Amino acid sequence: MATLKDQLLTTVTESVPNGRNKITVVGVGQVGMACAFSILTNHVSSDVVLIDVMVDKLKGEMLDLQHGSAFMKNAKVNASTDYAATENSSLCIVTAGARQREGETRLDLVQRNTDIFKGIIPQLVKYSPNTILLIVSNPVDILTYVAWKLSGLPKNKVIGSGTNLDSARFRFLLSQRLNVAPTSCHGWIIGEHGDTSVPVWSGVNVAGVRLRDFDEHVGTDKDKEHWNELHKQVVESAYEVIKLKGYTSWAIGLSVSHLASAILRNSNQVHAVSTMVTGYHGIKEEVFLSLPCTLGEDGVTHIVRQKLTDDELALLHKSAAMMHEVQQGLKF
Amino acid sequence: MATLKDQLLTTVTESVPNGRNKITVVGVGQVGMACAFSILTNHVSSDVVLIDVMVDKLKGEMLDLQHGSAFMKNAKVNASTDYAATENSSLCIVTAGARQREGETRLDLVQRNTDIFKGIIPQLVKYSPNTILLIVSNPVDILTYVAWKLSGLPKNKVIGSGTNLDSARFRFLLSQRLNVAPTSCHGWIIGEHGDTSVPVWSGVNVAGVRLRDFDEHVGTDKDKEHWNELHKQVVESAYEVIKLKGYTSWAIGLSVSHLASAILRNSNQVHAVSTMVTGYHGIKEEVFLSLPCTLGEDGVTHIVRQKLTDDELALLHKSAAMMHEVQQGLKF
Amino acid sequence: MATLKDQLLTTVTESVPNGRNKITVVGVGQVGMACAFSILTNHVSSDVVLIDVMVDKLKGEMLDLQHGSAFMKNAKVNASTDYAATENSSLCIVTAGARQREGETRLDLVQRNTDIFKGIIPQLVKYSPNTILLIVSNPVDILTYVAWKLSGLPKNKVIGSGTNLDSARFRFLLSQRLNVAPTSCHGWIIGEHGDTSVPVWSGVNVAGVRLRDFDEHVGTDKDKEHWNELHKQVVESAYEVIKLKGYTSWAIGLSVSHLASAILRNSNQVHAVSTMVTGYHGIKEEVFLSLPCTLGEDGVTHIVRQKLTDDELALLHKSAAMMHEVQQGLKF
Amino acid sequence: MATLKDQLLTTVTESVPNGRNKITVVGVGQVGMACAFSILTNHVSSDVVLIDVMVDKLKGEMLDLQHGSAFMKNAKVNASTDYAATENSSLCIVTAGARQREGETRLDLVQRNTDIFKGIIPQLVKYSPNTILLIVSNPVDILTYVAWKLSGLPKNKVIGSGTNLDSARFRFLLSQRLNVAPTSCHGWIIGEHGDTSVPVWSGVNVAGVRLRDFDEHVGTDKDKEHWNELHKQVVESAYEVIKLKGYTSWAIGLSVSHLASAILRNSNQVHAVSTMVTGYHGIKEEVFLSLPCTLGEDGVTHIVRQKLTDDELALLHKSAAMMHEVQQGLKF
Repeated sequence: MATLKDQLLTTVTESVPNGRNKITVVGVGQVGMACAFSILTNHVSSDVVLIDVMVDKLKGEMLDLQHGSAFMKNAKVNASTDYAATENSSLCIVTAGARQREGETRLDLVQRNTDIFKGIIPQLVKYSPNTILLIVSNPVDILTYVAWKLSGLPKNKVIGSGTNLDSARFRFLLSQRLNVAPTSCHGWIIGEHGDTSVPVWSGVNVAGVRLRDFDEHVGTDKDKEHWNELHKQVVESAYEVIKLKGYTSWAIGLSVSHLASAILRNSNQVHAVSTMVTGYHGIKEEVFLSLPCTLGEDGVTHIVRQKLTDDELALLHKSAAMMHEVQQGLKF
Repeated sequence: MATLKDQLLTTVTESVPNGRNKITVVGVGQVGMACAFSILTNHVSSDVVLIDVMVDKLKGEMLDLQHGSAFMKNAKVNASTDYAATENSSLCIVTAGARQREGETRLDLVQRNTDIFKGIIPQLVKYSPNTILLIVSNPVDILTYVAWKLSGLPKNKVIGSGTNLDSARFRFLLSQRLNVAPTSCHGWIIGEHGDTSVPVWSGVNVAGVRLRDFDEHVGTDKDKEHWNELHKQVVESAYEVIKLKGYTSWAIGLSVSHLASAILRNSNQVHAVSTMVTGYHGIKEEVFLSLPCTLGEDGVTHIVRQKLTDDELALLHKSAAMMHEVQQGLKF
Repeated sequence: MATLKDQLLTTVTESVPNGRNKITVVGVGQVGMACAFSILTNHVSSDVVLIDVMVDKLKGEMLDLQHGSAFMKNAKVNASTDYAATENSSLCIVTAGARQREGETRLDLVQRNTDIFKGIIPQLVKYSPNTILLIVSNPVDILTYVAWKLSGLPKNKVIGSGTNLDSARFRFLLSQRLNVAPTSCHGWIIGEHGDTSVPVWSGVNVAGVRLRDFDEHVGTDKDKEHWNELHKQVVESAYEVIKLKGYTSWAIGLSVSHLASAILRNSNQVHAVSTMVTGYHGIKEEVFLSLPCTLGEDGVTHIVRQKLTDDELALLHKSAAMMHEVQQGLKF
Repeated sequence: MATLKDQLLTTVTESVPNGRNKITVVGVGQVGMACAFSILTNHVSSDVVLIDVMVDKLKGEMLDLQHGSAFMKNAKVNASTDYAATENSSLCIVTAGARQREGETRLDLVQRNTDIFKGIIPQLVKYSPNTILLIVSNPVDILTYVAWKLSGLPKNKVIGSGTNLDSARFRFLLSQRLNVAPTSCHGWIIGEHGDTSVPVWSGVNVAGVRLRDFDEHVGTDKDKEHWNELHKQVVESAYEVIKLKGYTSWAIGLSVSHLASAILRNSNQVHAVSTMVTGYHGIKEEVFLSLPCTLGEDGVTHIVRQKLTDDELALLHKSAAMMHEVQQGLKF
C-alpha cells in the first residue's frame, strides 16, 4: 500500500542533489562555523557541506544549522567525514589546521599543516575539479601556496582570505576615530596577513579625500596625531580578541562570506586577498601575499597596481623572502 | 605605451562572461521589467539579460538598470535583440506576447502568441539547452503548453507562473480581513490562471487551523459571512488594477522573482504553478494547469495531491476541456 | 590648530546616539551571541548593545562583531556592564541565566535564575520603559512569568521564545521525511518548551493538505508509519546537539532573530511564543505557555485558537499546574 | 454570535497602527513608484504610505503593491489623498512636481513647483513634525531649498537626492571601462544635479589608487584617453534614458532607497546629497548643492571637505549664483 508520502506527493522527476552554488567548508571549529553561518544567513549559497574528522562535533553543528533551515530560505546543510559529499562544489573553503605549539618553530607548524592539507586538498580537487579554493587556515599566505602546490589548479583559482579582514578592522578603527561609517572609510592593508601586514597610507581616504591631503606625514613617525596607532591596533586585534574571548570568529566569518559572495556572483569586486605575487612590486619569489584583486567565478582575475613607497616595498620583500625560505624547507 | 587601465590593472586571467545564475527575461514591457527589477533587487541573479524587439525601449531599460548596479550588489545587466546574448542561462522568463484585440477570439489570440513564441522559444533552447522556461505571458496555461511543444524540453522544465500570483492576492485579502500577516494566512488557488481559477477552501488556514473547522460552509453559497467574496475579489483584481493604473506589474514581478529564487536555490519549496496535469485529478487531456508543485533546479519535481470536492474537480475538468479544444486548433 | 578630523569633516549637527531599532542582548554566551549575530546579519537592527558581567568575554565579543561592521551594513555594536548603555532599546532579549546543577531541583534552579533576573529586568525597564522583553533563558516559560512579574510591563510586552524553535525543528524533520522545503511543511508545537511540548498533529499540512486527510491516526500510537517519532526527535534534539557539540546556538539564534524581526517590523506574523495563557484552553493558572500568537511592535497582539484534542488539552493543563506550583514557591 | 474571525483569534491588545520605520512617498509617477518599490524590496521600511492627487492611479499602485506583500516580508502599504495617513512618518520622500513646458523659463517652472510644494510640505510637517524630508522632484537643488523654507525644519533635516544618482552613473561608467565592479570604482560628482554637475577627478580611485597617480591630466582637456567623456555621458544619461524609454525610474528609485536606508539605519554613511552649502567652499548664498555628507536619523550630520581645483570651485560658484537668482524671484 502506498505510504502517506506517496499519497501526498507524486514525483515528476527526482530532485537535483547538488545546488549549482554549492560550497564546502572544511573544518567546523569556531572559524569554520562562523564562515558557514555567515554564508547561510547572507544567502550566498543554498547548499553547504561541512567536512571534519571530529564526528560528534561535525554532526552537532550540522543538526544545529539544519534546525534553522526554515529561517535561512530553506538552505540545505550536510556534513560528512567523506569528501564524496563535497562533489561539484563551486567553492571550497579550508579552515582546518593545527595551532602553533609552545616552542614550535614556524617551519615545524607549517610542515604539520602541510601534512594535514595533503589529506584535504587532493580530495577536494578530486570531487570538484573546477572548484575555487579559498584558504583561511593560518599562516594563511604560506598555506595558500601549499594548497596551490597540492591542488594542481591554476593560480587564479587558489586564494587566501589574506588581509581582507585586516582591512576591515582598519576601516572600522578609522570609522571610530572619524565617526563615519566603515564602508565610507577606505583603506587597504596588504602583504602578509598578521604582524607584518602593510597599511598603504597613501590610499586612505573618505569620499576620495586622502588623509594625506591634509598632512603628508599621516601614518609615519612624523605624524603628531599618531594615526599609525590604528595599524598597530589592527595587528594587535587578533591577539586581543583571542585573549578576551579565546578565539576570533565573527569578523573572519563575515570576511570570508563576502569573499565567497564576490566569487559566486562573478562580481569583479576588489578585495585584498592572498594571491601569487611573483612579478608584482619587484617580488621574484614564488609566494602568495595579499594585494587588491578583482574576484569572479574564476577566482582572481586582475590585480590592482598600487603606488608603494620604498618602505612599503621593503616590508613586502622581507615577507616574501621569509616565506620563500620557509617554503623551501617544506616536504610535500 | 600602456593605457591607464593597463597601468592600473594587470590581468591574471580573463573574467568569466556568464554567471552561473544567469537569467534571461524576454519582453521589456511593464511585466518583464517588474520581473527583472524584482530579481535584481532580491539578489536572485547577478547576471540578467533582457531580450526584446523594440530596440530603443530595450536599451533605455538596460541603461536605467545599469545605472543602479552599485545599489544591486554589482549585478550585471545586458540587453540585446540577438538571442546569442542569452547563452547559458539557467532560467529563461518569457513575458512577451500580444494582447487581446477587440472582437478577437481566444483562439485567434493564442494563435498570434504561438506565432510570436515560434520566434522566441527555439532560440532560447538553442543557446541554453539545459535551461528552465518560466512562462508569464497570457493566457499563461495554454502558452506554457505551447512553449513546451516548441521547446522539446521535458515537462518538468517548462513552467507557467500560473496561480502563484492569484494565491498571493488571496492571502493578502485574507490578511486584511483577519489582521494577520499574509505569510501567516495560508490558502491555495489552483487551476486556470484568471477568471476560472479554483480556491481550495478546505485548505485555508492560519497556524494549521482551518476556517472550515469553525464553519463547514466557508467559501460556499451557504456561508453567511460571504468569505467567497475574497475569491471574487482575486478574480477581479487584475481587471481592477488594469482599470486603475493601466497594467499590473509589481505583484506579478515579485511572484515571478520568488519562483525564480525557489528554482535557482534548488529549494523544494511548494508553489502553485502551471504544470502538465495529465493524469492528475482525473484529467485526461494534455494540458497545463496550476497545482501545488515543489520547485528546484530541474523545475517541477513533485506535485502535491490535494483533496478536491466534486465542484472543484468539475471546474478543473471544464478548464482542461476548454484549453484542450483551443490547443487542438493551434497551428505549430 | 584644527585636527585632521576637523579639517576633513565639518559638523552640521551631532549624530543621533541611539537608533530607533536598537536591540539589547543580555548574556554573551553561545546563545546570546548567536542571537546577536543573527540579528546583525539579517539586518533586523542596526544598533545592538551587549550586556554581561564577564568583562573580558564581553569586550572580546564586541570587538569581534565590530571588526565585521563593514560587512553588516555598518551596524553599530556596543557592550557594557552598565545598563545605562541599553537606554531606549526597542527590544531587550534576555539569554542570561544559570544552568541546572547536578542534584538541583527545578525549583532551586528557577529561584537562582529569579535572583539573577532581579538584577536584570528592573534595570532594562528603567532605561527602556516602553521596551518589549523577549526571554530566551531556560526554563523559558517560568522565567518569562518571572520577567513579567519583575518588569511591571503589560502581559503583551513580555514574551518567551518558547516553542518557535521546537516548531522549526519539527518542520525541518517533516521536510527531511517528505523532501519538501521546511517553509512549505507546516506544523505547530505548543505548550511548554522542551520535554513536555505538544505537537498539534491535526494542523500538520503541506499546501493546506493535512497528513490526517490521508490517515486519521497520524501522530498517535495507532499510526503504522510512526510519524510521532518526529516529535520525539524534536524533544531529543536539544539534548542530542548539546551532547554532540556542547551547546545549541545557531537554530535558537535564528529563531530569536526572526521573532525580533516580526516584532520590529510590526508584521502581525504568527509565531509559537510563550505568552500569558490564563483563560485559554481552560487554563486557570497565571502561567506562560506557547501558543500561536501574532506579533507586532507592541508584542503579542492576538492568539490563534487551535482545536485541541482532549489529550492535547490534558498535556497543557498538566504543564500549567506544574509551572504554577513552581511559581508559588518562588521568592521575589 | 461570534464571527469566524473572533472565533479564530482572541485579542490581547490592539495592533500598533504605524511602524516606527514608516516612510511616506508623495507622488506615484514612475519615479515615486520606483522609490517605493525599491524601499519595499530592500526591506528599508515595513510601512509605506503613498500620497497623490490622482485617485485612480494611486489606488491601482497601492493594490498592485499590496498583492505582493507576502513577497516583501509582509510590508504594509497604504495610500491616500489625505495627509492624515502620513502621520508619524520617519521619512517623507517627495517626488511630485510639474515638468518643464515648452518655452517655459526655469523660474516659471520653479514657481509652479513651489506652488505645488505649498500644498505638500506643510501638510507633511503637520503630521510628522520630527520627520526628515528627502526631495527628489526637479530641479532638485532649488526645490530642496523651497522645501526647507516651507517646512520650518532645521537644515540638516531637509535633503535633496542630488548627485547620489549622478555619482552612481559615473561609477558604473568607470566600471565598464575598467571591468571592475561599480562599488569598487570610487568617484564623486558634486554640485548641481544635472547638466552643471562637477566630477571631482582628483578623488577618482580604485583601491585607493587615483587615476591621477598615473596621469595628472585625467579628466582635463589635456587627457589623451578622454576620461572626461564619462562625465559627459553621465550628464547625457538622463536625457538618453528619457529619449529611449520615456522616463527614468529604476536607478533613481534605487538611489533614493539607499539614501533612505542610510538615514533610517542611522549609519553615518557618506553620500553626495543636496544640502545647505552656505559657508562651504566659499559659497556665500543660501543655496542647496550636493556635497559628500554623512547621513543618519537626524539627516545630514557632517560634510566632507574635498580639495577642489579653481575650475571646480568656479563651477560651484556659478551654480550657486544662478540658483540664488532664481530663488530671489520666487513668491512663497
